[in-house]
Amino acid sequence: MTTYDTQLPGWRGTIERFIGHHLVQHLLVFLIIVNALILGLETDPDIHSTIGDYLMAIDHVILVIFIAELALLMAARGWRFFRDAWSVFDLIVIGIALVPATGSLSVLRALRVLRVLRLINKVESMRTVVAGLLSSLPSLGSVFSLILIIFYVAAVIATNTFGQAFPELFGDMFMSSFTLFQVMTLESWSEGVARPVMEHFPYAWIFFVLFILIATFVIVNLFIAVIVDSLNSQSSKPGNPASLDSELKALRREVAELRTLLIELKRPNG
Amino acid sequence: MTTYDTQLPGWRGTIERFIGHHLVQHLLVFLIIVNALILGLETDPDIHSTIGDYLMAIDHVILVIFIAELALLMAARGWRFFRDAWSVFDLIVIGIALVPATGSLSVLRALRVLRVLRLINKVESMRTVVAGLLSSLPSLGSVFSLILIIFYVAAVIATNTFGQAFPELFGDMFMSSFTLFQVMTLESWSEGVARPVMEHFPYAWIFFVLFILIATFVIVNLFIAVIVDSLNSQSSKPGNPASLDSELKALRREVAELRTLLIELKRPNG
Amino acid sequence: MTTYDTQLPGWRGTIERFIGHHLVQHLLVFLIIVNALILGLETDPDIHSTIGDYLMAIDHVILVIFIAELALLMAARGWRFFRDAWSVFDLIVIGIALVPATGSLSVLRALRVLRVLRLINKVESMRTVVAGLLSSLPSLGSVFSLILIIFYVAAVIATNTFGQAFPELFGDMFMSSFTLFQVMTLESWSEGVARPVMEHFPYAWIFFVLFILIATFVIVNLFIAVIVDSLNSQSSKPGNPASLDSELKALRREVAELRTLLIELKRPNG
Amino acid sequence: MTTYDTQLPGWRGTIERFIGHHLVQHLLVFLIIVNALILGLETDPDIHSTIGDYLMAIDHVILVIFIAELALLMAARGWRFFRDAWSVFDLIVIGIALVPATGSLSVLRALRVLRVLRLINKVESMRTVVAGLLSSLPSLGSVFSLILIIFYVAAVIATNTFGQAFPELFGDMFMSSFTLFQVMTLESWSEGVARPVMEHFPYAWIFFVLFILIATFVIVNLFIAVIVDSLNSQSSKPGNPASLDSELKALRREVAELRTLLIELKRPNG
Repeated sequence: MTTYDTQLPGWRGTIERFIGHHLVQHLLVFLIIVNALILGLETDPDIHSTIGDYLMAIDHVILVIFIAELALLMAARGWRFFRDAWSVFDLIVIGIALVPATGSLSVLRALRVLRVLRLINKVESMRTVVAGLLSSLPSLGSVFSLILIIFYVAAVIATNTFGQAFPELFGDMFMSSFTLFQVMTLESWSEGVARPVMEHFPYAWIFFVLFILIATFVIVNLFIAVIVDSLNSQSSKPGNPASLDSELKALRREVAELRTLLIELKRPNG
Repeated sequence: MTTYDTQLPGWRGTIERFIGHHLVQHLLVFLIIVNALILGLETDPDIHSTIGDYLMAIDHVILVIFIAELALLMAARGWRFFRDAWSVFDLIVIGIALVPATGSLSVLRALRVLRVLRLINKVESMRTVVAGLLSSLPSLGSVFSLILIIFYVAAVIATNTFGQAFPELFGDMFMSSFTLFQVMTLESWSEGVARPVMEHFPYAWIFFVLFILIATFVIVNLFIAVIVDSLNSQSSKPGNPASLDSELKALRREVAELRTLLIELKRPNG
Repeated sequence: MTTYDTQLPGWRGTIERFIGHHLVQHLLVFLIIVNALILGLETDPDIHSTIGDYLMAIDHVILVIFIAELALLMAARGWRFFRDAWSVFDLIVIGIALVPATGSLSVLRALRVLRVLRLINKVESMRTVVAGLLSSLPSLGSVFSLILIIFYVAAVIATNTFGQAFPELFGDMFMSSFTLFQVMTLESWSEGVARPVMEHFPYAWIFFVLFILIATFVIVNLFIAVIVDSLNSQSSKPGNPASLDSELKALRREVAELRTLLIELKRPNG
Repeated sequence: MTTYDTQLPGWRGTIERFIGHHLVQHLLVFLIIVNALILGLETDPDIHSTIGDYLMAIDHVILVIFIAELALLMAARGWRFFRDAWSVFDLIVIGIALVPATGSLSVLRALRVLRVLRLINKVESMRTVVAGLLSSLPSLGSVFSLILIIFYVAAVIATNTFGQAFPELFGDMFMSSFTLFQVMTLESWSEGVARPVMEHFPYAWIFFVLFILIATFVIVNLFIAVIVDSLNSQSSKPGNPASLDSELKALRREVAELRTLLIELKRPNG
């Protein structure tokens, strides 16, 4: 998340205050949306050939404003600019527009629309959602590694065994990985993959059924891990078992104190 | 939910008492079901050509009763009628039957069956279920916006990149959105979409695999959010951690009071 | 679950003791498994033509034993026999074998294998699982009714609108329901159903996308209801919030009693 | 998990200390990864024909090191070696490489890549994940048996009824089981299986719809059982309801003790 240090003194603070001002931020959100609509309209050949030049002009003006925003922020922050992941993301998606999109790089033209994703950084509720999604990723690292190992092992076996007979499905490690990804999503795994392969290799069903069972079992456990994680992360709220525990411990200390008081009280009477 | 204010004085109260009477409500439920069966029977060409006229007549009689119900309620409630979302829904589905269903509006004839949905408002247990479903929607707003942005970005990229070569799949923004929805449901995403596209654009797999991973990850998190929400909304029942917390706090106050009593007791003895 | 009243006096008790004896029950489980294997072997034409007669003979012997078991139990229990749902189930699956399986009833021959399901009643751990599955059904009644209404409404609309142009998909109410069930499972909903229909009715995508969104949303909520139900049914175990609550209430009563004792203690000293 | 008893005296301890040393373990992890890459590279025909001999040589050297590791460990541990499931797994995947992979055993060549799975035993975080996955299996035994029974019953019915007309789908018990597995994953169940069958057997939809409803219902309940299990297994942590319960019980005992003290205190005063 990009926050603006409006307390900063000097010209750096002036820049932060200016860009962080809610009117400037609202204008930027508006320009991101206008930019998104222009890029959407330009996909239509009719619109492209009639008012395409006007749209392109507006696109360029908006791009200049975005570049100015980033340039100002970089000037104010120096190297600290790169510590904020969202700023780096902004720099990359804006930078894409400056690469001459010719030849093999023409796909970069299409990626200009990634600028719309800047909206996520500008709108708080969506930033929260994305931060929540990303925060669940690190805890899934081990499961992802496990899925990668399963895929690698299955891809090597499939390429070696089925590769020569079915070059379109299992011709090389890449094709095998793609086909196994398709099998994992259960898309045409039987009609499109397993049944044709089984005509040459009658025992191929062992491979496919085992792969589906293991892959879906691991993935279901991945989902369950995310659910359990989400439920546990709720535990920092008041009224949860953990806060009850400390509350109970305090109560026991107080009751123990009462007991000491009572015993002291009893002694002179005894 | 439509509730009937039977305590209202004057003729308005008479209407509310009449329509809200359980016998009238039971009759209306019966008529909704009969109406549903008639509309189901009319789909059969044989039945339509033989006793279609009789069915149509019954349909018209039922429609008149429904219109009378709504007209009476509107007369009794005036503008307040429109504050109840279910009443407005009733008005729309009844109103559809009154539009002359000719030409391009002939599809409205088919929509007459939406009247059956009035059953949900009339039967309490189903109203509860639908209210529960609808209540989980607002909290999902941010995730829906995120999915919309992902779809928009992916649709622009797909239309620009694959549009010319595959007009049936990615010809314009609409076709791209529909195809991406199909890919998101994992239906024939590989055999029907990705593999043909990969024959022209060998690197298209990056786009499809990334889109599937991101879309399913966001949607799985959407489901998890609903589950966590459902589990938390259970927390207003007695015996839950939050009520335990206030119970414990009250207990601590009482033990503290005991301590004060004991110290007072000790002083004169000391 | 079929339990055997071994304390019953007279000949009825003798029968209950005999059938309920663990050796007899083990023999019956063994015969059910042998019967299952025979029915499985008989599906092979080679085995059927060579040792089919021997297998059929064993099948008949086992069937006679099963009939004897049920006849004895019916004699001992009279009308009470029919109060046990599992006994009625046994009677039906055994009864199927006695119906002459000729002509249009030949499918009943295939249903003889339902006898294997008697295993569930005989093995405790599986009876528990099935009882758990069935117990979650009643609470889902309202959601099932809702899904039925959605299906009915969608089937009437689809039959009226697409029926004439696509008789194989939406020819009558039954075909429409089957196709909508297929769409709900997301199987070939786009390549096999929506895309062909959209060539005649360009706006059909509204119907299919809405139907998929509503149907999957309701079904996801059905699953969530089952999960929340399962988690709540765990609440009858010791150490759960509800038992903590009563424990806490008892503790407060005892502390209040202490307070009364202390105040009484203080008065004579005061 | 393979742990190394570095405290063992004598030459056995020397071996355990040597193999268990973190540098040796790091080397083994490195060799497993190199081995995985070699087996991946060898799937490429070009690489295989050019530097295939060199890769094969490295593969043999690594294999010798792995055999030495296992041989040393077997020498040090004797029969205890076989008590560790991971050691037995290592022995099998290494042993596969020693079987002459000719004729019908040529598939064993492809299985050499299973060696990569040794990585799971060597890396702690992944061992934890796999142990977690395997630990949830035993509690699912009853549900797995239920699914097996449902499959067996459905396969016998399908083979007997549809077998002759559709030998490719339901020709024998094996083909029926495979097709039913495909139907359970919802892959082409309608376009590829149910619709063709329904052209011969109009009532086949009853079988397929029932099978899908029962199978998915049982599997959804399987997943829910895993989720509930995972949430309950969290209960051994501090601050959970169960520990709160024992905490509360201790508190009640202390308050009861206070009451005894108070009553004793009151008696001499009374």
